[in-house]
Amino acid sequence: MALRAPLSRACTRVTSVSPASSAFLPNASQWRRSNATIAPSATKAASGSKGPTAMVFMNMGGPSTTDEVGDFLSRLFADADLIPLGRLQNYIGPYIAHRRTPKIQKQYAEIGGGSPIRKWSEYQAAEMCKILDKTSPETAPHKPYVAFRYANPLTEDVYKQLLEDGFGGGNGGRAVAFTQYPQYSCSTTGSSLNELWKWRNRLEGKRASGEADPAGAIKWSVIDRWPIHSGLVEAFAQNIEKTLATYPKERRDKVILLFSAHSLPMSVVNRGDTYPAEVAATVYAVMQRLGMKHQYRLVWQSQVGPQPWLGAQTSDTVKNLMKKGQTDMVLIPIAFTSDHIETLFELDKEVIAEDAEGHEGVKRVESLNGNPVFIEALATIAKAHLESGSACSPQMALRCPGCVSERCLAQKEFFAGQAKHLQAE
Amino acid sequence: MALRAPLSRACTRVTSVSPASSAFLPNASQWRRSNATIAPSATKAASGSKGPTAMVFMNMGGPSTTDEVGDFLSRLFADADLIPLGRLQNYIGPYIAHRRTPKIQKQYAEIGGGSPIRKWSEYQAAEMCKILDKTSPETAPHKPYVAFRYANPLTEDVYKQLLEDGFGGGNGGRAVAFTQYPQYSCSTTGSSLNELWKWRNRLEGKRASGEADPAGAIKWSVIDRWPIHSGLVEAFAQNIEKTLATYPKERRDKVILLFSAHSLPMSVVNRGDTYPAEVAATVYAVMQRLGMKHQYRLVWQSQVGPQPWLGAQTSDTVKNLMKKGQTDMVLIPIAFTSDHIETLFELDKEVIAEDAEGHEGVKRVESLNGNPVFIEALATIAKAHLESGSACSPQMALRCPGCVSERCLAQKEFFAGQAKHLQAE
Repeated sequence: MALRAPLSRACTRVTSVSPASSAFLPNASQWRRSNATIAPSATKAASGSKGPTAMVFMNMGGPSTTDEVGDFLSRLFADADLIPLGRLQNYIGPYIAHRRTPKIQKQYAEIGGGSPIRKWSEYQAAEMCKILDKTSPETAPHKPYVAFRYANPLTEDVYKQLLEDGFGGGNGGRAVAFTQYPQYSCSTTGSSLNELWKWRNRLEGKRASGEADPAGAIKWSVIDRWPIHSGLVEAFAQNIEKTLATYPKERRDKVILLFSAHSLPMSVVNRGDTYPAEVAATVYAVMQRLGMKHQYRLVWQSQVGPQPWLGAQTSDTVKNLMKKGQTDMVLIPIAFTSDHIETLFELDKEVIAEDAEGHEGVKRVESLNGNPVFIEALATIAKAHLESGSACSPQMALRCPGCVSERCLAQKEFFAGQAKHLQAE
Repeated sequence: MALRAPLSRACTRVTSVSPASSAFLPNASQWRRSNATIAPSATKAASGSKGPTAMVFMNMGGPSTTDEVGDFLSRLFADADLIPLGRLQNYIGPYIAHRRTPKIQKQYAEIGGGSPIRKWSEYQAAEMCKILDKTSPETAPHKPYVAFRYANPLTEDVYKQLLEDGFGGGNGGRAVAFTQYPQYSCSTTGSSLNELWKWRNRLEGKRASGEADPAGAIKWSVIDRWPIHSGLVEAFAQNIEKTLATYPKERRDKVILLFSAHSLPMSVVNRGDTYPAEVAATVYAVMQRLGMKHQYRLVWQSQVGPQPWLGAQTSDTVKNLMKKGQTDMVLIPIAFTSDHIETLFELDKEVIAEDAEGHEGVKRVESLNGNPVFIEALATIAKAHLESGSACSPQMALRCPGCVSERCLAQKEFFAGQAKHLQAE
């Protein structure tokens, strides 16, 4: 733990190495590219009366190789939605990114050389679309896209790909921005939406402003949160049960469940960000599904820098429980659905190996990754969203009470305003 | 708002004036006393094979008259579980209490001269017991008691009354400590349990330590939390619907719901207190019951003093929304079930009348008070608890990861340890 330094983990919100079960993964990025070339124009024949539909998975992303770490960190520290550095963001951001790069590269090297998030995301999106083609034939074909905020495939490039594939750019067509953060935060989903909205305005030209042919632009809607969807809860619960089953029977009921989510600075919490309450809702729903039989806590990881963050901290909690002799505990990453550096490095190598000194009683549940129950849940959420005709949840249109960002305001007005186009469909 | 000063509201966590609908209330304290005199000894004949059962409602309490404010504040500032003042607690506490008394007396005077919490609590407990006598005849008769932490009837006096009524003191017998805080916090329910445990040890003599006749002491169990009980959620939801119905139809769907709970110092949050997550669970459950149709936020009230507390603040939120022109909003006290000074003074007179300048769009839902749906819920919770044979929830026995209080440890061990006596019943 002595190696930890301020900001070391803010850099690495969502990253990690190639998955152990890579055989499980098709070469999803190739699949998408080859698929994209044969995609029909959005206005051409499609099997459903409302199809095709672009399903765009939004996430933070992570460097797939250690060479990409520098660019990843530069983008991350340039994002005031995630790391507000004030008026000097453009100067301080690159400086911190540059300084942190070697350290973070080392962390990625230690977990295998890069993040599996792209592979998992592309796999999840592709598999979900296959299910949707069957369950929602009206909006088929469903075309999977992955748009990352800080790593390839970047939102900008994905928007260009959408245009190339016949969505927007005069063709109209329908796309769904599907956040892969189950719980909404302005620093995660909000930041991705701000980015999507920015590139939409730049790349749809006069259609974006409504000056010419507004109907030719993509009609967007957003799945902005799904913290207690029954399929998500079921997938988490099954993974927890699987891990509990590895304890001897006489110890099993006494195992403490520690749900761990990425923390937020108190400045964001106090502005009114909805994330802490939604994460708590997920935790409670999972505990209910498990019958409330176990002791548990919601704890927060990855605090960095000198400013106050929301606690209790995951690392402190584990150390305190160890001190009290409560050495059977299961860590459950509850706010992220794929493996990333916070699971593979921070939880596995820092919290479990260092804080808990590798005690055999301290374990982590598998991330959802390619879990079929989870992917089925994504398809159910998407189908319900497509049927609802809604542009986003009512909650998304409400800015944080303390928010002063004009960009957030405009972005929210844009996405909520898409409702009129969707209802006219 | 200019009148607000540090600690002015910490003094007044759970208090307010006689209710508007006092006709609705029997003279519950008289009822209890007269009932108590005819109570059978716990070992004498009772209508159920496991009865009688003492149902002890625990809450913070509040001064029923302005004359009681001084004593109330003295006890409140002496409680390190609620307001940790360090080694000088016994000196600083009385000083602050003394200094605050005139100001807080004025607040109570402004809301009618005292708190209705005793009347409501006694009414709720009595009505619940009537239901329980029918639904759980085995454990009948159920005898209602109210034990406050800082006001009459004090825990100490209630324990004496229990002994007088034939519970414990050599007679054995069964009592349930039923917290009236739906969500568990060490500073509320935890503090009440510490107090109950303390007086149990003092008043049950050698039976408490197990030195003599341990079976003659009261067998205790605890209902320690019930944040998403369906009856509680239904009662909240119905009250919200009632308030929404007072808005013109065209404005109704756009009304923002602000769930407001008493805040906690970040030192308590960061120690691992379960309260913020459980309050969030209540809010999410109520929103689900309402169909997730409205925009909403969970906000936190009653922050005092210079230390950091959990936000966003209720008062700031209302002011910010007003500034943005979002003037239709409903305040919902979500972590307390009876009216008290935080509803009748802070929300009604400070937030609504001052922050919102009495705007007709800003309203507060009625507190649960004598709501029959709520009282039915209390009876359902109690019946399930009595049937379960459990001493407390698994969660209660887990100390906060950052807790260093030996008293909390011993208290938790005592209550969790009651399981062996209950199973032997």
